[in-house]
Amino acid sequence: MAICFLSPVKPISISPLVHNKNPPVFRCNFSLPTITTEPKPVFTSVRSFAPATVANLGPGFDFLGCAVDGLGDFVSVTVDSSVHPGEISISDISGTHASKKLSKNPLWNCAGIAAIATMKMLNIRSVGLSLILEKGLPLGSGLGSSAASAAAAAVAVNEIFGGKLEAKDLVLAGLESEAKVSGYHADNIAPAIMGGFVLIRSYDPLELMSLKFPEGKDLFFVLVSPDFEAPTKKMRAALPAEIGMPHHVWNCSQAGALVASVLQGDLVGLGQALSSDKIVEPKRAPLIPGMEEVKKAAIRAGAFGCTISGAGPTAVAVIDDEERGKEIGESMVEAFWKEGNLKAVAMVKRLDRVGARLVGSVPTR
Amino acid sequence: MAICFLSPVKPISISPLVHNKNPPVFRCNFSLPTITTEPKPVFTSVRSFAPATVANLGPGFDFLGCAVDGLGDFVSVTVDSSVHPGEISISDISGTHASKKLSKNPLWNCAGIAAIATMKMLNIRSVGLSLILEKGLPLGSGLGSSAASAAAAAVAVNEIFGGKLEAKDLVLAGLESEAKVSGYHADNIAPAIMGGFVLIRSYDPLELMSLKFPEGKDLFFVLVSPDFEAPTKKMRAALPAEIGMPHHVWNCSQAGALVASVLQGDLVGLGQALSSDKIVEPKRAPLIPGMEEVKKAAIRAGAFGCTISGAGPTAVAVIDDEERGKEIGESMVEAFWKEGNLKAVAMVKRLDRVGARLVGSVPTR
Repeated sequence: MAICFLSPVKPISISPLVHNKNPPVFRCNFSLPTITTEPKPVFTSVRSFAPATVANLGPGFDFLGCAVDGLGDFVSVTVDSSVHPGEISISDISGTHASKKLSKNPLWNCAGIAAIATMKMLNIRSVGLSLILEKGLPLGSGLGSSAASAAAAAVAVNEIFGGKLEAKDLVLAGLESEAKVSGYHADNIAPAIMGGFVLIRSYDPLELMSLKFPEGKDLFFVLVSPDFEAPTKKMRAALPAEIGMPHHVWNCSQAGALVASVLQGDLVGLGQALSSDKIVEPKRAPLIPGMEEVKKAAIRAGAFGCTISGAGPTAVAVIDDEERGKEIGESMVEAFWKEGNLKAVAMVKRLDRVGARLVGSVPTR
Repeated sequence: MAICFLSPVKPISISPLVHNKNPPVFRCNFSLPTITTEPKPVFTSVRSFAPATVANLGPGFDFLGCAVDGLGDFVSVTVDSSVHPGEISISDISGTHASKKLSKNPLWNCAGIAAIATMKMLNIRSVGLSLILEKGLPLGSGLGSSAASAAAAAVAVNEIFGGKLEAKDLVLAGLESEAKVSGYHADNIAPAIMGGFVLIRSYDPLELMSLKFPEGKDLFFVLVSPDFEAPTKKMRAALPAEIGMPHHVWNCSQAGALVASVLQGDLVGLGQALSSDKIVEPKRAPLIPGMEEVKKAAIRAGAFGCTISGAGPTAVAVIDDEERGKEIGESMVEAFWKEGNLKAVAMVKRLDRVGARLVGSVPTR
């Protein structure tokens, strides 16, 4: 009985993947669905991966996000007779970005909360699980760190019991976690689970639109994270309470242009829309030292567009070529250093079209 | 030499149609382009048609519009040696909706202003033109009446000189007219010229995105115009100056969903987005007697969505079937009568995918 833990790049299709079961639009009632017949585990152990996500995307503030490949969190879940049936225990938190800030109490841990919510939806009462969280994402970076943990956990728990739940249910499970950790927003958790670009259309009922970026077109994100803790409260407080009609119309039209550019695979248009926010970015950028110059440096270096990822401090630029992406990243790192006096790290990552997925499993005997 | 004036439904492709020359995204500088070599007329006379348009489209307020087939204005333009070279004279205004409010002075007439702007762009100095405007659209109905006249005139003038200008130039010519008549907004004139759905991305420079509703899918508009003059100033004054962040995010997300639904041909999603405006429609609907009940009646009768067309008073609903559209129209007319004490007329019209076009011509000898 070999345990195969693969890289997240090529998921094993042991069971139909969660995100492939659904049409582009998900409509569901906002109450936790339950499966009346308790499913049995089909694996002894599974390992899942969930990608980093870029939320907000300029004029897509609070309703649009997308997933980034090759960067994210892993969760391993094992059937564990030493854990009380129907409960979950976090046995370890490891990985590059394991932190003391992360609680092993499942009620206070993103992965734990999402795992419990998923177990409840599945109506699990007879089996206990233990969970290992491997943090590949830094906390508070603006790359959907909490959502990645929650998404990986929800998918792992669902898959160990045969994948009975659909993507929309897993998003709801993840939202329980996000609500406790960073606010009731699905713009990270939905793309972390579903992959690609996801538009949050409404919360009550939860309606999600999967926006398909055309196959065969390359889209790279240049992610530049400075060594700076974005003051979350300040970032939220910086948002204007009221918006003038001209700015509202402008941002709405740019949001529409962004959506159209994604669906049409128009990278120039996408970048232009990404850069066009007149409401949120102008208030938040000054709170991240150097950000305004970093954006200019990205555009000068050839990026199609640049904005703040999530609530920052990571800056995100878009480009269609990996090598050019690296050059853009260098310019952005330099600008963070020169203008913001901040060290920064650049990565160039492809759009993730898959979302959270199983990357390893041990079948039951 | 036969003069052939056809119906607008099947345009003659005498010269390549203006709207087919361009890619989906138009980017141009906002200055009137001129053609340095004055073109000669290739026709003695032409007749053009430009469709009605529905602007705003709920959350698409001030940046999104679409064209409606089989309803609009005609313009005939003739080379006229009795008119001073480089100038235009309006010889007649006819049609169902000819009105004394329409001036024959070309400087004060939508068609005249757009015709002059087009002549200037073409650098016409040696030929004088006379123009006949046939008003198929009522004034102040919320169906882009002024834009239809301007679009038909711009296309007619361009085509009589061999169609040298592109759609974006004609939109700029039409904008000169719109600016004088109803404000500097391209959400009627752009779809009137280009057909289909058009997103106004920016004005400086003018950038337009053509949003293609998939071929082979039917989209009908139920247009119900009550016998009521919408108080234009009041309609504009009703708009909120400031918008709270939650409503801004909501409308932005709905605008994104509307754009995605158009591109994906998702009529249910399109209707849902159309109905979802929380900012403009709630302020304007109460100013049109019965409008709120008309919307409810449309939805009850099976419409996918309903809102105010332009600044009203026409109500617009969407459906995928002409017969069902007629039933919906009857329900809406009834609601205008019962709830608003207003007589109303219903029409069911297809999406116009073509825009302003030549419908007849007399070649030069």
